[in-house]
Amino acid sequence: MNNQGIMARYREYLPVTDKTPELSLQEGNTPLLRGDQLSEEYELDVYFKVEGFNPTGSFKDRGMVVAIAKAAEEGSQAVMCASTGNTSASAAAYAARLGLRCVVVVPDQNIALGKLSQALVYGAEVLAVRGNFDQALEIVRNLTERYPFTLVNSVNPYRIEGQKTAAFEVCDQLGTAPDILAIPVGNAGNITAYWKGFVEYHQAGKSDRLPKMVGFEAEGAAAIVRGERVKEPETVATAIRIGNPASWDSAVKAAEESQGRIDSVTDEEILEAYLEIARREGIFAEPASAASWAGVKKMRKQGLIPAGSRVVCVLTGNGLKDPGTAIDAAAAEPKVLDCDESVILEAIMGAEEVSHG
Amino acid sequence: MNNQGIMARYREYLPVTDKTPELSLQEGNTPLLRGDQLSEEYELDVYFKVEGFNPTGSFKDRGMVVAIAKAAEEGSQAVMCASTGNTSASAAAYAARLGLRCVVVVPDQNIALGKLSQALVYGAEVLAVRGNFDQALEIVRNLTERYPFTLVNSVNPYRIEGQKTAAFEVCDQLGTAPDILAIPVGNAGNITAYWKGFVEYHQAGKSDRLPKMVGFEAEGAAAIVRGERVKEPETVATAIRIGNPASWDSAVKAAEESQGRIDSVTDEEILEAYLEIARREGIFAEPASAASWAGVKKMRKQGLIPAGSRVVCVLTGNGLKDPGTAIDAAAAEPKVLDCDESVILEAIMGAEEVSHG
Repeated sequence: MNNQGIMARYREYLPVTDKTPELSLQEGNTPLLRGDQLSEEYELDVYFKVEGFNPTGSFKDRGMVVAIAKAAEEGSQAVMCASTGNTSASAAAYAARLGLRCVVVVPDQNIALGKLSQALVYGAEVLAVRGNFDQALEIVRNLTERYPFTLVNSVNPYRIEGQKTAAFEVCDQLGTAPDILAIPVGNAGNITAYWKGFVEYHQAGKSDRLPKMVGFEAEGAAAIVRGERVKEPETVATAIRIGNPASWDSAVKAAEESQGRIDSVTDEEILEAYLEIARREGIFAEPASAASWAGVKKMRKQGLIPAGSRVVCVLTGNGLKDPGTAIDAAAAEPKVLDCDESVILEAIMGAEEVSHG
Repeated sequence: MNNQGIMARYREYLPVTDKTPELSLQEGNTPLLRGDQLSEEYELDVYFKVEGFNPTGSFKDRGMVVAIAKAAEEGSQAVMCASTGNTSASAAAYAARLGLRCVVVVPDQNIALGKLSQALVYGAEVLAVRGNFDQALEIVRNLTERYPFTLVNSVNPYRIEGQKTAAFEVCDQLGTAPDILAIPVGNAGNITAYWKGFVEYHQAGKSDRLPKMVGFEAEGAAAIVRGERVKEPETVATAIRIGNPASWDSAVKAAEESQGRIDSVTDEEILEAYLEIARREGIFAEPASAASWAGVKKMRKQGLIPAGSRVVCVLTGNGLKDPGTAIDAAAAEPKVLDCDESVILEAIMGAEEVSHG
């Protein structure tokens, strides 16, 4: 049964000591679901690593549990982060569990409703600033250098340590690493963490190969692809609406060392992939997550991924975090009807005629 | 690793045949998290069964995977349900995975935003009726008797079969059944299913005892407690806003046979418990879920639960399904500030003075 978190399950690979507090919301151990319909259609062997199953609904929990536990171990009373939403939700939850103060700084626009609700419910102090993520992170980095707040953004090295466990799980679930690991790229910490995980597991003899790492930025925030900072990043995929990735260099290194690449996908491609994952495979991920599958489709069309390749697409967060985008993307309103049997019957049978007509 | 759904894991206890399609979004295997802070404060040994970790964010997935697989096995092309939101999300996801048509009928008011977004994204046909759940269910029951749609509400017996696996998991996770199993009661299918599961596992020698079943309705929808149908059910806990529970008799039977009880809790008690679970234990469940913990607190105060009792509270759904209620309940708006280091510093230090003052 699922009765452990990542610090217990992968202890030997993590900076956990006898003094590290036991902390877990049973993060990790997320499903690797095969996409049967999409595999057939695209002549691939596609799996989705569904990180939305984590306690606060995103991959951030893997790194945050380590970062918060180590902060407590080191005597910290308060933690702080900048966030597009997922990091703040995760920090708030783990801080609550250990009784630490948690301050989160988020952009006042473009934060998904679900993520905002999480930070508030968990009792974090939420500061919304008139600026974007990159500006918020710069301020938080400066403040945490001078005041007794522990920085828990992914520049905190414990975050990357925890996040690398997702790569371990992929290997454990498949028996080895896939041919290709596809992943959304925002602040670029996650691609860095996965690559670190695959390399460590390979060195430990737990996987007989290394995957190619392919990362995808949103076109409106594609700093690494463009080779320059994007001052006003814009994309529907708010979780990767980041114009100056903190882990830029290590992301490029992961792509190069693995003979992979970092590319970008448009918002249109992201939303198409987002609906496709939901309607063909029954998986509701947040828009940014769909960048991985959108990118794989793009590379497949370009002939850059051979037929039959085993591909793992990381779906970084739960679709429930952003209900507004979901309703917009579905481009369908519920039909509002009188509560009457014949009215409902007509609606159903009418639809049937249309769908068969 | 978590690589199976409930039909594979508990096959011998389920109506699965060689002809049943393999269907899974890796439902089940949800965490049983101990509430360390609340256990200490209330002198209990409290665990939370966090069903919001399921693929569509609620316990409904356990029963729905069986109901949809059996519908397909029996040659059905279309499924239908009435729903306060969670059932429709689950039906839509599993129907999508098997390519079945899915029609869901929901009340046009009081459906949580996240749940609506799920049904739409998964591609279900959503009919919102000017009425409540009970009225919608009556119509759907009538229509599915006369037309070739499979009813997948919990009156479909496969739903209860699948849902009982949650009781199996609780026993597997604790080594035996708890003293008390506390659970929200809406349509009353889930308390019925848990009791069935505990009894079967006990008979199979997998648990050396049976728990007391304590179920909690919302006061504004407390049909079983009042002993009469509630025509206009009202509660903030929309998932249990049901005035004429379909499994009324079997819920009463579960409480009686187990020497437990069915009681009600107010919206105020529900929202207090909801915030307490989030802020003390780091678990974000939907409002209806908190009825279980609210009820345990009430019974503890009344002297009906002895100190030291081992209590499992079922948290039926993910808090992300209802971000609106979360933001209202938190009763805190994010502070909107200029993106300036000194402004943010002042906000943090001001808060510190206040909190220490």
